Amino acid sequence: MSKFWSDKVNELTPYVPGEQPKVKNLIKLNTNENPYPPSNKVREALSAVCEGSLQLYPDPNADDLKQAIANYYQLNKAQVFVGNGSDEVLAHTFVALLKHDKPLLFPDLSYSFYPVYCGLFSIDYQTIAVNSKFEIDINDYPVDNGGIIFPNPNAPTGCYLALDAIEQLLKNHSNSVIVVDEAYIDFGGDSAAKLINQYDNLLVIQTFSKSRSLAGLRVGFALGQTHLIEALERVKNSFNSYPLDFFAQKGAIAAINDKQAFQDNIDKIIASRDYLISELKQFDFKVIPSKANFIFVSHERIKAETLALELRQRNIIVRYFNQERIDNYLRITVGKQEECEQLVRAIAEILSNF
Amino acid sequence: MSKFWSDKVNELTPYVPGEQPKVKNLIKLNTNENPYPPSNKVREALSAVCEGSLQLYPDPNADDLKQAIANYYQLNKAQVFVGNGSDEVLAHTFVALLKHDKPLLFPDLSYSFYPVYCGLFSIDYQTIAVNSKFEIDINDYPVDNGGIIFPNPNAPTGCYLALDAIEQLLKNHSNSVIVVDEAYIDFGGDSAAKLINQYDNLLVIQTFSKSRSLAGLRVGFALGQTHLIEALERVKNSFNSYPLDFFAQKGAIAAINDKQAFQDNIDKIIASRDYLISELKQFDFKVIPSKANFIFVSHERIKAETLALELRQRNIIVRYFNQERIDNYLRITVGKQEECEQLVRAIAEILSNF
Repeated sequence: MSKFWSDKVNELTPYVPGEQPKVKNLIKLNTNENPYPPSNKVREALSAVCEGSLQLYPDPNADDLKQAIANYYQLNKAQVFVGNGSDEVLAHTFVALLKHDKPLLFPDLSYSFYPVYCGLFSIDYQTIAVNSKFEIDINDYPVDNGGIIFPNPNAPTGCYLALDAIEQLLKNHSNSVIVVDEAYIDFGGDSAAKLINQYDNLLVIQTFSKSRSLAGLRVGFALGQTHLIEALERVKNSFNSYPLDFFAQKGAIAAINDKQAFQDNIDKIIASRDYLISELKQFDFKVIPSKANFIFVSHERIKAETLALELRQRNIIVRYFNQERIDNYLRITVGKQEECEQLVRAIAEILSNF
Repeated sequence: MSKFWSDKVNELTPYVPGEQPKVKNLIKLNTNENPYPPSNKVREALSAVCEGSLQLYPDPNADDLKQAIANYYQLNKAQVFVGNGSDEVLAHTFVALLKHDKPLLFPDLSYSFYPVYCGLFSIDYQTIAVNSKFEIDINDYPVDNGGIIFPNPNAPTGCYLALDAIEQLLKNHSNSVIVVDEAYIDFGGDSAAKLINQYDNLLVIQTFSKSRSLAGLRVGFALGQTHLIEALERVKNSFNSYPLDFFAQKGAIAAINDKQAFQDNIDKIIASRDYLISELKQFDFKVIPSKANFIFVSHERIKAETLALELRQRNIIVRYFNQERIDNYLRITVGKQEECEQLVRAIAEILSNF
């Protein structure tokens, strides 16, 4: 504390991201990164930027990147917003579209940054419990709200809400903005992007950090009808004119245009996820059905926290949340196939002692 | 407007950055970019990043970059904050340290983003007129305030406030945070960074966009005692965990460590500034004394707006502000020597018709 701090700073409880360890030779299955690097076409695009005019400002509107994303989703450029990672896109969304007199609603189990944004921007919120299977039940969301946001697939559970349920939610809450945070949608889910032209209250948020192997570049985006995108642009242009550097813009364009590399990457991760789920079930793990690049698991015989520590001793990091309802679960990112196999061997060894 | 917008979005008057034209072959003297590219060492560092693990998140704390900046200014790492361009650093500063019950003070002529931040973050502010020479007079700042911020050298005037005056300001306002926004300090001014260990109310903000030729990378930083830096970290970690991508972190480290390239760059720009001022004075321009990489000029015979249009017709862009007190001035970035010479020839031609 300091007398110079604003009242807001004193109130804040900042978000704590997953550990980014600086030691080498760890199998890092704790922050849902893609285990495979971006494609050669992305690297070529980035190499070309190294030769460019880095002393100049990048395009503040990132028009070429917006157009590439619009083409991919068959939308117009004015229906696309881009930001410095989907965390920044989310932050602007909370200010622009989710701050109203009535409380914002989100699941009790969801991205733990949501309540942090609410704290920063003084947004009243209410959490709605997911059901005993950790699923979102759209009938639990009261109409009297200032907006609804949820990850789909949900984090940290991996649970997926089908598009027909989302469509019903959009209809039930036609006076509220519904934000579908699709960081993990490409790993087997169906994006709500195709509903955008039908629903004026839908905002879809995605990221290049997971399915497009570019966590290191910091690019996220939102899709929605132009009146929603305009609100985000107004906040962005009151905060930081140039959030995406040359590398982020050019690398993301190359990534979204390289559809073959994208599909190959997704296929490999889904195959490894299937393998991992099948192996862990043989060890009597409870595995929540996942459409994400991670799985959410618990075991009757060994506490989640203990298992995380045992894995760490074997140089494998997974994510443990010391949080009500899920404090006996671990979130495990689907790594490369050989990493998944190493994880399975480590778990076999650990369980033999419990 | 839209029924889904928050009240805040309806209130906003976003910042309008200088034009980033997409046509080629323009002499771009409108956004104070450095005319020279970053050094080979920076390009080598960036090329190495292309080969790295871009699928992983970058260090959320950018520790190596903070250490490199700390070394440069003989401070501790905990006295350094980094952000996605100095615009983001400023935004967090407004929230963390400049939002109080009493009004924030800044000069009537200064960075036009300041009132925009105040709008976004609901900060009460009051502008203090610079004197007739466009200089800041520290005696004009009432003690009853919620903080003071000003660019030094000031933008768009280029006027410089000497360190002894800043020191007096720090003493006069020991209960207020004084933010010295030093985007242009390296072009001949003396940084207040050396005062940090003496004054607990001083925050210095700088950028890699100007003197370090990296506008395209988006890196800014703040220097201050740890209690001030901690406030910024708390806001940053409630907004976006990973604002600096791998390229920004590695490129900025290489740039700050390459002292020889930096000095050569500055020397060339100062020499061209001296040339430009001397030539324009011969054409009877009024030139405000500048310690920045731009000059602020007016002419009795030709209106600033007209001159800007005439220059544009000759493929030279400069910045015109349609704003009280300065609507007959142009801000002209110091370009490469040959660009300055071309500007002088164009002005000679234009003036011959007026």
